[in-house]
Amino acid sequence: MKKIKEEDARIQKNIKGIKHKIVVMSGKGGVGKSTLSTNIAYGLAMSGKKVGLLDADLHGPNIPIMLGVEGKKLSSVREPLKINENLKVVSLSFYLKDSDDPIIWRGPAKTGAIKQLLGDVNWGDIDYLVVDLPPGTGDESLTVAQTLGKVDGSVIVTTPQDVAILDSRKSIKFSKLVNMPVLGIVENMSGFICPHCDERIDIFKSGGGEKVSKDMNIDFLGKIPLTSEMVETGDEGKPYIFSKKSGTTYESLNNVITKIVKKIEG
Amino acid sequence: MKKIKEEDARIQKNIKGIKHKIVVMSGKGGVGKSTLSTNIAYGLAMSGKKVGLLDADLHGPNIPIMLGVEGKKLSSVREPLKINENLKVVSLSFYLKDSDDPIIWRGPAKTGAIKQLLGDVNWGDIDYLVVDLPPGTGDESLTVAQTLGKVDGSVIVTTPQDVAILDSRKSIKFSKLVNMPVLGIVENMSGFICPHCDERIDIFKSGGGEKVSKDMNIDFLGKIPLTSEMVETGDEGKPYIFSKKSGTTYESLNNVITKIVKKIEG
Repeated sequence: MKKIKEEDARIQKNIKGIKHKIVVMSGKGGVGKSTLSTNIAYGLAMSGKKVGLLDADLHGPNIPIMLGVEGKKLSSVREPLKINENLKVVSLSFYLKDSDDPIIWRGPAKTGAIKQLLGDVNWGDIDYLVVDLPPGTGDESLTVAQTLGKVDGSVIVTTPQDVAILDSRKSIKFSKLVNMPVLGIVENMSGFICPHCDERIDIFKSGGGEKVSKDMNIDFLGKIPLTSEMVETGDEGKPYIFSKKSGTTYESLNNVITKIVKKIEG
Repeated sequence: MKKIKEEDARIQKNIKGIKHKIVVMSGKGGVGKSTLSTNIAYGLAMSGKKVGLLDADLHGPNIPIMLGVEGKKLSSVREPLKINENLKVVSLSFYLKDSDDPIIWRGPAKTGAIKQLLGDVNWGDIDYLVVDLPPGTGDESLTVAQTLGKVDGSVIVTTPQDVAILDSRKSIKFSKLVNMPVLGIVENMSGFICPHCDERIDIFKSGGGEKVSKDMNIDFLGKIPLTSEMVETGDEGKPYIFSKKSGTTYESLNNVITKIVKKIEG
């Protein structure tokens, strides 16, 4: 018990320089949660905020690829990796010997790892900590919710089709159950514009996110279309919001960030 | 200890009527794992095999939607839900009071739930049990691997882009580490044909699955294109392989199933 108390005290001391905390979550995997977390964090940093990005997806830590730092190691376990003047990042991936290595951990080990990431990493004084959670409502989500203390809110990411919508409702309920306010829902991969004929195609359907926001009385933060460029910029480690700087998709990403900041800072 | 032994004995007795076991897994979520599991199970059943489908994704049990039985309850906790003469299914979703309810469980509870699904459900004498795992290599995957006994093999599902490929390598390594032979890898959402101009667009890039199969010396089971119809048939509960019965996508799904059966039955 004493050890747990010491750990919790260390965590609280460590995160007390963080002004605002945002948790990005989704019920279903593959809805673009890491892509969105990366772009939100990068966008906030571009606007002059000091930002930390914590990749809490232990089984599939993809943030390093999306920031172009996959395979990098940390100079010290206590120091996040600096992406630019305003953005630093920590991912379990930095601690792996080999990027291919699967994290075959049962729940308690995962809880321990996340507590360690939160307790040992020196985030310093920052405006925002953006936490990218793995999909679902398991150990990682619970630990983050219970350890971070007051969280400004969660951003729920979904794609428009029914199977994703059902799972996003679970995330909203989870967020409320653990007393984490829901900042709102983002409908990602909402429509695709064919680069050949410019026609719009709703591959994953459309409007599901908006509907769930009404049904469950939470804010709708916006729709972000599916584009090959979003996939490419992710794989190339150059976040869309940084590498594109204009166009419909850029604007919709920017609107999501503006809404989040407005909800938090007023 | 006695209780655990009794449970294990009950599970072994319960699964001994299952001739072949296939585990469908992915490193990353949202790559179409549940869609593929559903179509593989349905396709096997259409070819005359007796098939059981176990939805082991506790946080996002989507198989019931994809089979058109979301919201159904089981008549007895021991009897799987009968979809047709040859196919029966069990999902944690059947045991939930409300489809929206999130499963906020830490690892040990998840392990217990999966053991219970395996030990208490009477699958009877069937040719195939297809298990749809949640993404990643955590409690659910470990429990299934350790409880099912000899598994004929795993089917690894990925999408072509780098972030998914990295995670699929983890699943392959996991499968080998727990002595589960890898049947092969499927590249899903591989190219999209615009319904307006018929041009092909590689939204999530292309060829990544084939590359990883060569790199890691495992079989390539095929590419399945992304189509709006696959999304729709999933949401409508009418598996693509059953509702379409022809066309490129149908053929590629069918080829995957044929390859799996050939690898297992020779």
